[in-house]
Amino acid sequence: TLKPLSVSIEPDKKFPWEWHDTAFNDLFEREAYIVSYNRRLRHPNWVLEHLTKESLKRGEGVDRSKSRFLEDLDIPEKFRAKLVDYVKSGYDRGHMAPAGDAKFSQEAMDQTFLLSNMAPQVGNGFNRDYWSYFEEFCRRLIYREDFKDVYVFTGPAYLPKKDEKTNKWYVKYEVIGDSPNVAVPTHFFKVILAAKDDPSKPGGRFYALDAFIMPNERISDATPLTVFKIPIDALERATGLTFLNQTVETVPLCSAEASKCILVA
Amino acid sequence: TLKPLSVSIEPDKKFPWEWHDTAFNDLFEREAYIVSYNRRLRHPNWVLEHLTKESLKRGEGVDRSKSRFLEDLDIPEKFRAKLVDYVKSGYDRGHMAPAGDAKFSQEAMDQTFLLSNMAPQVGNGFNRDYWSYFEEFCRRLIYREDFKDVYVFTGPAYLPKKDEKTNKWYVKYEVIGDSPNVAVPTHFFKVILAAKDDPSKPGGRFYALDAFIMPNERISDATPLTVFKIPIDALERATGLTFLNQTVETVPLCSAEASKCILVA
Ligand SMILES: [Mg+2]
Ligand SMILES: [Mg+2]
Repeated sequence: TLKPLSVSIEPDKKFPWEWHDTAFNDLFEREAYIVSYNRRLRHPNWVLEHLTKESLKRGEGVDRSKSRFLEDLDIPEKFRAKLVDYVKSGYDRGHMAPAGDAKFSQEAMDQTFLLSNMAPQVGNGFNRDYWSYFEEFCRRLIYREDFKDVYVFTGPAYLPKKDEKTNKWYVKYEVIGDSPNVAVPTHFFKVILAAKDDPSKPGGRFYALDAFIMPNERISDATPLTVFKIPIDALERATGLTFLNQTVETVPLCSAEASKCILVA
Repeated sequence: TLKPLSVSIEPDKKFPWEWHDTAFNDLFEREAYIVSYNRRLRHPNWVLEHLTKESLKRGEGVDRSKSRFLEDLDIPEKFRAKLVDYVKSGYDRGHMAPAGDAKFSQEAMDQTFLLSNMAPQVGNGFNRDYWSYFEEFCRRLIYREDFKDVYVFTGPAYLPKKDEKTNKWYVKYEVIGDSPNVAVPTHFFKVILAAKDDPSKPGGRFYALDAFIMPNERISDATPLTVFKIPIDALERATGLTFLNQTVETVPLCSAEASKCILVA
């Protein structure tokens, strides 16, 4: 709601402008995820999910085909990703928090179809294939590999490439929309922290952690997941995000003790 | 300070991760400006200044030559712009809040030399020329054109360009540093709100407002400033920022009632 400027611009205050409101990220807590939305790029900075056996159960009557892609009216119009931006763009509306993680209620699933949970993804070979197997991999940590809690950060990234002629680094990305509106990430990442009780320590927990980043392009089904592993520190540097602000003893998720890290196509 | 992960990851909490800390902007209030620093791009999102006759006075002994460019230790090392990033990059360390606005104390001036107040700017023809006249233009609103309060938002922007062959829009920017670290903006903006008492309304204030955006490249001294005017709404769409979250009656800054909007080279 707009207030008269004179309320906040008082000549005797040093910085009287209401500058706190000039941040440009929206934070929303949904049933199945939390999202930090970037108003400049018009897609999430990151989404966070917490998967459990419970959260992965299908609720009665919950059906993906009842959900529709929707613009997010919680975001001011001028910063909103629009349905029309994706039309004929050649890119899929790629869920950051997957619909398949939100089967516990129709509302939870519907919320994953908000465009504030989407970023443009290559469809064939990526969103519809390799990336979706990767999403299933996260769920399988619960229902096949016996982890109790799986925390997943998912989001877009923009990585520079070296121009071999000039030896300089450049980031280049497309912006889709008739008047350009939604940025197309060069990469997508997931940080996966999987936890279960530690049988060797009464009351203790066993944590497995790995981060992955993959290009927004067709990836062959045969590519091993481990190809896309990235040290957390390198991912934090690339994204500006801090995923772990606390110390915890972890083993690599892709290790004999934790998971085989095999995608099932 | 790091805390054990177990403090915040509690299996009974839905989103137990301390996700609030995964934002990626730092906000610092300095003597002469406020800055929102972007941890991914390693330069400000925006800086805000409030210029007055008082703030533009030179304090005793204040001297620009006493200031040194400094890395900002308030920013975690992995997200920090470094002195070495700019070395041999071909770009100037471009002040967002200008040193020339902070002559009132040595501390205020020194703070403008923090790399968290810098973005890479083309030197000749821009930082050392046209852009510096533009900075002086803001100060002249106070000491030549009789405004009492001048509020200035300054910051970088990344604008897409149309590829005429494919009709698609792309953003492309360089990233400087030996291992690439600091992004080079394609453009820079200022939003200027100038205020003074309104003689026609007792107790009332007269507000003049305009926004400008210019490319990060050599600009001829002869180019009229008005060429770079941009509607606030368009600038907000481009940057994701909201400069005015309140209504106020304003006249254009570049208008007969307010300012001639002439740069002095
Ligand atoms: Mg998908
Ligand atoms: Mg300068």
